[in-house]
Amino acid sequence: MESALLPFPDIDTPALLLEREALQHNIDTMQARAREAGLALRPHAKAHKCLEIGRLQRDAGAVGLCCAKLGEAEVMAAGGLDDLLVTTPVAGALKIARLVDLARRARVRVVADDAANLAELDAAAQAAGVTLGVVIEIDVGQGRCGVPPGPPAAELARLVLQARGLSFEGVQGYQGGLQCVADYAARESQVGQAMEALERSLAALREAGIAVPTITGGGTGSFPIDARLRRLTEVQPGSYVTMDAAYAAVQWTGGAAMPLARPLSILASVVSRPTRDKVIIDVGWKSANSDGMPPRCKNRPDLSFEFAGDEHGALVAASGEIDLRPGDRIELLPGHCDTTVNLYDRFVVHARGQVQAIWPIAARGKSH
Amino acid sequence: MESALLPFPDIDTPALLLEREALQHNIDTMQARAREAGLALRPHAKAHKCLEIGRLQRDAGAVGLCCAKLGEAEVMAAGGLDDLLVTTPVAGALKIARLVDLARRARVRVVADDAANLAELDAAAQAAGVTLGVVIEIDVGQGRCGVPPGPPAAELARLVLQARGLSFEGVQGYQGGLQCVADYAARESQVGQAMEALERSLAALREAGIAVPTITGGGTGSFPIDARLRRLTEVQPGSYVTMDAAYAAVQWTGGAAMPLARPLSILASVVSRPTRDKVIIDVGWKSANSDGMPPRCKNRPDLSFEFAGDEHGALVAASGEIDLRPGDRIELLPGHCDTTVNLYDRFVVHARGQVQAIWPIAARGKSH
Repeated sequence: MESALLPFPDIDTPALLLEREALQHNIDTMQARAREAGLALRPHAKAHKCLEIGRLQRDAGAVGLCCAKLGEAEVMAAGGLDDLLVTTPVAGALKIARLVDLARRARVRVVADDAANLAELDAAAQAAGVTLGVVIEIDVGQGRCGVPPGPPAAELARLVLQARGLSFEGVQGYQGGLQCVADYAARESQVGQAMEALERSLAALREAGIAVPTITGGGTGSFPIDARLRRLTEVQPGSYVTMDAAYAAVQWTGGAAMPLARPLSILASVVSRPTRDKVIIDVGWKSANSDGMPPRCKNRPDLSFEFAGDEHGALVAASGEIDLRPGDRIELLPGHCDTTVNLYDRFVVHARGQVQAIWPIAARGKSH
Repeated sequence: MESALLPFPDIDTPALLLEREALQHNIDTMQARAREAGLALRPHAKAHKCLEIGRLQRDAGAVGLCCAKLGEAEVMAAGGLDDLLVTTPVAGALKIARLVDLARRARVRVVADDAANLAELDAAAQAAGVTLGVVIEIDVGQGRCGVPPGPPAAELARLVLQARGLSFEGVQGYQGGLQCVADYAARESQVGQAMEALERSLAALREAGIAVPTITGGGTGSFPIDARLRRLTEVQPGSYVTMDAAYAAVQWTGGAAMPLARPLSILASVVSRPTRDKVIIDVGWKSANSDGMPPRCKNRPDLSFEFAGDEHGALVAASGEIDLRPGDRIELLPGHCDTTVNLYDRFVVHARGQVQAIWPIAARGKSH
């Protein structure tokens, strides 16, 4: 009965596994490539939400971290990772009060795309006696947050420069929608369009005589193109550290092989074998992302996964006869790392088949 | 600026709200209707994962709780809710050891559908000097766990009766796939088919001379039909307590209005207003279920919600001009309660516009 519990006989399932050497490989590879391209690397902590990983990224040479939410930034700062860019606008009195409070104990910058929001940030910063760094967000094609390309970024930058509680730190242009476009040529074309949109804002800023200290953006999928174009000064990849099935399908460049490993997996157990060709496992919508691509079986292309509810998944063998029975374990490659990580309280970190450490996912659920 | 923070000016977003009176209405209504039908009510804790709600259900008259996972059952038992049915087979040495340990301090029963699994459960129970209650699961149409209808349930029940560490407690026949079928006639027909499948197993058990103490199954959607058919002796609804947009669309019976209120909502904030007709809010895939139906705006049918990434959602106004700006708040009705609740650490419980309590979602993420 023991052998059925391999690998990791002391770890119950579902568990989120992270292979230590593959993780380090990804951290070091991205850092080296950013350095070669002359880009500052500010990895996105939204992908891992984990202090231990943030510290490895910092120790490798990252200039700081990005956070999508203030709640994540508070956790990172409390853990000593205190050079932070909040990549979503922070709006409303409660959040602005928290942001100003955080600015007392960390170097925190925030994106903004709205004049009224800037006035509120300025008033709160002045009242607290701090200076808030502001990065103007430009919508470079995602249709989400951000001002349109062109003059509006310069207009907001001027407001920031006039505000006594704010400092103008630069612009952000991020296009999330293109990051997982698998075909390199299609992705390259979309990155080019996003950078052209960004350039229209940079031209307006130059025309207004406003210096732009930082031009930040980019993700794991756009990285090889961002590194070649060098329009950005700082890049924000997040998923590169854990990777997932969606990114594994991405053609890194026109020719070169994907240089990133896949440290993240879900350890699952079989709970039932209702038919000869199928087993039910203990991973459903509560233990793997249900947005985007579903998980895949690691090293078992003969098995196909389907969700079977909140707590259940089904694996079907192409052969018609499945070689698994209740209690057996299997590893899945998550389809989307960010939303999978956000379901778990800890990473089980392993190396050479042995558990090395348990790392809390300290900012899990800190979406506020 | 204060008025923009209503309702609940001290609660930051995203937050999971629960209206206290509507919650109690649902608990009392389901309990009264189960009592009228002569059915024992064993609500499913997988929907709420919260000790405070489980205690309200017990105090109203529930015979105990269902848990989908052993991790949930451990949390409920530690909180004094110690009459539990684990509705998914428990397989593998680690989990069986935990189950036997839990059986020392709680009345815990478990479903099973596999002879080898029964032998393992029996050996572990005997070694620990406990008796484990076993409920044989029958696949009544979902194609997930469970033995096929007919003789197999009697064969497994016989194994349970022969096992010195196990007691035979009955059968489970649950069809999750039909619970949210909106059309009553279609749902009624599917419940009828499931109950016919269950009856084939019950006939085999009668023929074998095996008494069946409990016949458990059903959910919120099947409840009105289960109450009329009375084939089950115990029902397991879960979602009725919080409700969601998918269940709100369900036609309760052929004629009667839905007797359940909708206590659950997500409080969201606007973070950006990129165009006249659209705002971006702080709820994405990490703060609302991404399986099944997406969230809807509460009391605002003129606004449509679309996911815009892990941390973002978009609201578009049908009028072409949206009346919201950064910092404003809005309530969403989640599409699927179970998977939304599993993203949050706490319920913000409110009554008459005031926050009454914060209830931890103690079994959040306890999918192991």
